Amino acid sequence: MDFFFNPQAVALVGASAKRTGANLVHNLKQGYEGEIYPVNPNYQELGGLTCHPSLAQVPGPVDLAIALVPARFLPQVLKDCGAKGIRGVMIQSAGFAEVGTEGLALQQECLSIARESGIRLWGPNCMGLVDVYNRRFFTFMHPYITEVLNHPGRISLVVQSGMLSAAFLPETVDRRSIEVNKVCSIGNKCDVDECDLLPALIEDETTGAIGLYLESLPRGRLFLELAAASPKPLVVLKAGTSQRGARAALSHTASLAGDARLTLGLLQDAGVHLANDFHHLIDLCRSLATSKDLSRGSRVAIMTFSGGSGIVTCDLLEQRGMEVAELSAQCLEALQEVYPPWMPPANPMDIYPAMEQVGRMKAFHAAARAALQDPQVDLLMIHHFIGLDDEDLDLARLKQMADETGKALAFWGIGFEGPARKFRIEAERLGIPVYSELTRAVDCLAAAASWQGPRQPGPLPVVPPRDTRPAEPVASGARVSLDEFASKTMLAGWGLPMVPELAAQTLEQAREAAVRWGYPLVLKGLMPQVVHKSELGLVEPEVNGPEQLAEAFERLQEKLKGQGRVLVQPKVRADYELIVGYLRDASFGGCLMLGLGGLLTELVPDVAFTLAPLKPGGAADMLSRLKASDLFQGFRSLPPVDLEALADLLARLGQGAAASKEVEQVDINPLLISNGKPVAVDATVILTQPPHEDETA
Amino acid sequence: MDFFFNPQAVALVGASAKRTGANLVHNLKQGYEGEIYPVNPNYQELGGLTCHPSLAQVPGPVDLAIALVPARFLPQVLKDCGAKGIRGVMIQSAGFAEVGTEGLALQQECLSIARESGIRLWGPNCMGLVDVYNRRFFTFMHPYITEVLNHPGRISLVVQSGMLSAAFLPETVDRRSIEVNKVCSIGNKCDVDECDLLPALIEDETTGAIGLYLESLPRGRLFLELAAASPKPLVVLKAGTSQRGARAALSHTASLAGDARLTLGLLQDAGVHLANDFHHLIDLCRSLATSKDLSRGSRVAIMTFSGGSGIVTCDLLEQRGMEVAELSAQCLEALQEVYPPWMPPANPMDIYPAMEQVGRMKAFHAAARAALQDPQVDLLMIHHFIGLDDEDLDLARLKQMADETGKALAFWGIGFEGPARKFRIEAERLGIPVYSELTRAVDCLAAAASWQGPRQPGPLPVVPPRDTRPAEPVASGARVSLDEFASKTMLAGWGLPMVPELAAQTLEQAREAAVRWGYPLVLKGLMPQVVHKSELGLVEPEVNGPEQLAEAFERLQEKLKGQGRVLVQPKVRADYELIVGYLRDASFGGCLMLGLGGLLTELVPDVAFTLAPLKPGGAADMLSRLKASDLFQGFRSLPPVDLEALADLLARLGQGAAASKEVEQVDINPLLISNGKPVAVDATVILTQPPHEDETA
Repeated sequence: MDFFFNPQAVALVGASAKRTGANLVHNLKQGYEGEIYPVNPNYQELGGLTCHPSLAQVPGPVDLAIALVPARFLPQVLKDCGAKGIRGVMIQSAGFAEVGTEGLALQQECLSIARESGIRLWGPNCMGLVDVYNRRFFTFMHPYITEVLNHPGRISLVVQSGMLSAAFLPETVDRRSIEVNKVCSIGNKCDVDECDLLPALIEDETTGAIGLYLESLPRGRLFLELAAASPKPLVVLKAGTSQRGARAALSHTASLAGDARLTLGLLQDAGVHLANDFHHLIDLCRSLATSKDLSRGSRVAIMTFSGGSGIVTCDLLEQRGMEVAELSAQCLEALQEVYPPWMPPANPMDIYPAMEQVGRMKAFHAAARAALQDPQVDLLMIHHFIGLDDEDLDLARLKQMADETGKALAFWGIGFEGPARKFRIEAERLGIPVYSELTRAVDCLAAAASWQGPRQPGPLPVVPPRDTRPAEPVASGARVSLDEFASKTMLAGWGLPMVPELAAQTLEQAREAAVRWGYPLVLKGLMPQVVHKSELGLVEPEVNGPEQLAEAFERLQEKLKGQGRVLVQPKVRADYELIVGYLRDASFGGCLMLGLGGLLTELVPDVAFTLAPLKPGGAADMLSRLKASDLFQGFRSLPPVDLEALADLLARLGQGAAASKEVEQVDINPLLISNGKPVAVDATVILTQPPHEDETA
Repeated sequence: MDFFFNPQAVALVGASAKRTGANLVHNLKQGYEGEIYPVNPNYQELGGLTCHPSLAQVPGPVDLAIALVPARFLPQVLKDCGAKGIRGVMIQSAGFAEVGTEGLALQQECLSIARESGIRLWGPNCMGLVDVYNRRFFTFMHPYITEVLNHPGRISLVVQSGMLSAAFLPETVDRRSIEVNKVCSIGNKCDVDECDLLPALIEDETTGAIGLYLESLPRGRLFLELAAASPKPLVVLKAGTSQRGARAALSHTASLAGDARLTLGLLQDAGVHLANDFHHLIDLCRSLATSKDLSRGSRVAIMTFSGGSGIVTCDLLEQRGMEVAELSAQCLEALQEVYPPWMPPANPMDIYPAMEQVGRMKAFHAAARAALQDPQVDLLMIHHFIGLDDEDLDLARLKQMADETGKALAFWGIGFEGPARKFRIEAERLGIPVYSELTRAVDCLAAAASWQGPRQPGPLPVVPPRDTRPAEPVASGARVSLDEFASKTMLAGWGLPMVPELAAQTLEQAREAAVRWGYPLVLKGLMPQVVHKSELGLVEPEVNGPEQLAEAFERLQEKLKGQGRVLVQPKVRADYELIVGYLRDASFGGCLMLGLGGLLTELVPDVAFTLAPLKPGGAADMLSRLKASDLFQGFRSLPPVDLEALADLLARLGQGAAASKEVEQVDINPLLISNGKPVAVDATVILTQPPHEDETA
């Protein structure tokens, strides 16, 4: 990808003296030090540079071309690029897949030409690359950006939306004074996608955190592997999470997964931070870009000029799982020296009375020093009103003090716009985040404090060029759900712990179950293709003696009308129930799901996801992400869940399902936890093609 | 309260030529048209006004005094005020309850003097009143505010924090360009509190929504009654919701209630909107201030210049229960006229290609008109980039179009600060809210759309002067929890549906239960003062025959060692379980709780509250606020809950508990729902004093 980020020479195909074509020439000249070759037969010269009638006539070697000509000319441009030996082309023109089937066909044609010529395509329908650090503005955006983006920050972005680069970027810089490093606008991403760009940004020393706005994740599994190995924090805003497009639900696993829940759950599993909207994305990024400082711990000292904002901050910290630090005796003593006698020092440190007593800056610095030197404090959060008083804080000195004591610093700053802007820029450049809303501040600080480095440390996976052949039509082979007995026979074969059971054709056989396991028993009627048995009255949940057994057996036989068998199991007494599932996803491959079971969780789902096969520690990770995670550690004198047994079950499920190509979904519901041990009580396996009778019966 | 808001003459006790004393005189002169009498023996004249050596020497009648003298002089000032016939005093000095016990004593002394003299006290330790509409600046705040607050908005605030008025207000005006109407800073609120001020603000025609920052709610029940009757929307930021101060949990009800959950739950029940922090409070207020427009429905048309922000908006709308409108055929046709042929019109309406095709303003107005005229649209949300292009939108015309079609309008506006500020002010004055973050926009629009007017329409309750006598020491009478049998006997007496049961001393008596109800049975050992029976092994959850009965009875007798009885009940088969409770709260009085029962809900509580006695519709309201509310309407072919029976149970619980003074808490856990009917299976009543043996046994 280096020819996109560090080209030796750039050809601008479609440069002109007007509008976007002129912007392109202008922007390239604002810092790019390689050769710039405008190409356009209608001009001799553009912006003081010689303009060439065609690519063939460009004198020197070229490794990157930026194309901004009407879409229909692109196939020829790409052929010319190939002939010129150009390695990368950014197509910034629109008129491709986004305008319908004709545009899509044109896009596919371009892609084929590029593949044949060994060219990587960036775009089309994109804004290209803005690299503030190296002052490379490979884009037709308004030249305004080359003026305002005059200082690199530590945030780099990959965005699949023109808005984010063309409109949101100026807003971010102008109104929020947030500085970025690199912005990659990848548009339709017909070839180069987020997976291609991530390694370059991860390896870029001047980038601290990476934010991505994504509408699709064509190489989902690869993306997760890159994210899990990234030593830099990633933030993703995933668009298109509404239910409209959710697949039809054949199993609980698919229904609980939905498209969005699966994607978001897997991103979390890979250690990715999730954003709700564009501003949240940027705020998370700037916090995480300084996370080396912020992730030192979650014990927060609050220094404020207002009792009210101190209390609200405590409330918010507790909601987000942060801790209001218990100040040490030494810190409290130091505070007492500047506090008025009537005021007992505490956290939040309300220093307003101290300011009145000993002067504003003296109180401020004394309290800040006391908190930063306190071994029971990880982070000092300062509430500050900017711009009413002209005495300036010495932010550099404050940061130095924090660095010396190994502590983190953050500001909640309110006040007047002019001074606030100056303050924000100065602080952020020093690596001190400044927030304007308290809730956002605590949200970002909690995200940063939770960042513990890569989930799967190690070398980044190698990113192959994307397979851009048009997707093969989905096999129309019917989905078949195995009945409970067949499903569990398969799962038992993989070594999963199952409730014992027998399939009875006659009452005589059913009675044998009573002899083996005693009462109470559970009876279920098995009918081909019926998954939701209880809704058809095919479950007898508790049979307590020989008479009830005979009655229940007869009731079921009547319903089955000779079309099925009766399954007989001992009733398992459980402490609680889980649901476990496997799902083969087009983008992510095999995925495992673990969640709370029971009726309520269909209404208020509590599920976690990970990639199959299960990673070491993966079961514990998933459990810890459930809202009810305390349940599994021995809540209310329940026996804690046997984590090893649960991990073993999930590992076997992942391996077994992966090994048989035709397994598309597995639903173990419920998985009961009895004295800490998991046991599968009901299960459904869904196959993409009918298995042979003898494999499952 | 009229003498606070509309005084005929104001005395400024402690006015001076310096700092805050000078601010006071200056601020009063910026619009107040009544007489202003500075009082200070050290000056002859202040700010061009005659300064009087004492209140007694002020020539005319005075109805309001603002006191800004050291705290210790206040008792004398109040006596002088009484002698002068002054009705209201705003104490803006600090040094009272907030500085410890001595200050508290001084505050109490002032209060006694005020009561004797018929004076209402506002403050102390407050910033007074800012009334932008009438230009009354009854405050020592920096005179800057009289310059920037030059146009009244429709938001009025009651704040219990100096920060909110002195620091947050300038920020709100300067950086967010949000305009306020009245700000009441009530400080320690030793006498005048939010309940006193609410009626004035509710009746103020120029106020559209009221925001309150509250650290305490001394007259909680009255506040809820005012809120429920308010025809104007209220927003509350309640500080101090963290668990630190939560009371020790004697019952599940108290534990699930916590201090915060109860307060926030009751506020929701009264129709109050809850804010997370200061900016959220203001954003909710400005949205709700235009709620006459916004509450027309929740079908949203999105007009955007960016596919990406359109998709993200859809995601957020769905998360918040709003609807992405299905556009009518007529609307789609109108859009097609300005759209390029390749682009099928849809919602979100991405009008960027149309702008390229027919020009920016033509596309904008055509699409806006089409959406506003669509009968399937309630609200048009416009994404707009402000300030890159100089063509201006005609906001007034747009608003007129919306008014004519009876539709609501809102903007998500990003762009450059200078033009954005101007745009925001113009739009907000027209009653069109402008948001800068998408998540906040959708959150506020959903809140406004949900506002349906007062919960309890009718006249506002009369607000009596607060009983400001020091609270009587809490009675030290021990709390006593009745055992299950005694508790349920009491509840059965109130007419609640209980599971049948008998208390057995002998196995013989227990066998009688089997004869009456058949198996399975449940046996419980009753020990005095034991609430959590199952943790002591005192519950035999399922007894299936005579042998098991004998064994279970013996096991329990062993554990009881002759100290208790054995309770025998038929086992109830339930569809799901609830928890119901009653709680007597110091601030709110009797409260009812309804929540999901079972193990999980202790980890992830799902509960709702209302005041006892139950209002008509109160049970349905509570059910609808539970996260799992779909459960009760016949989810997955379960019989729907019998709402009438549940309401009857709650009404009886509220009445019964209210009628017996000593009942402090009642816990019905679980309340099983069996074929839709509620039946109480276990219960605990907690009394503040021991009842006589014969009342409960």
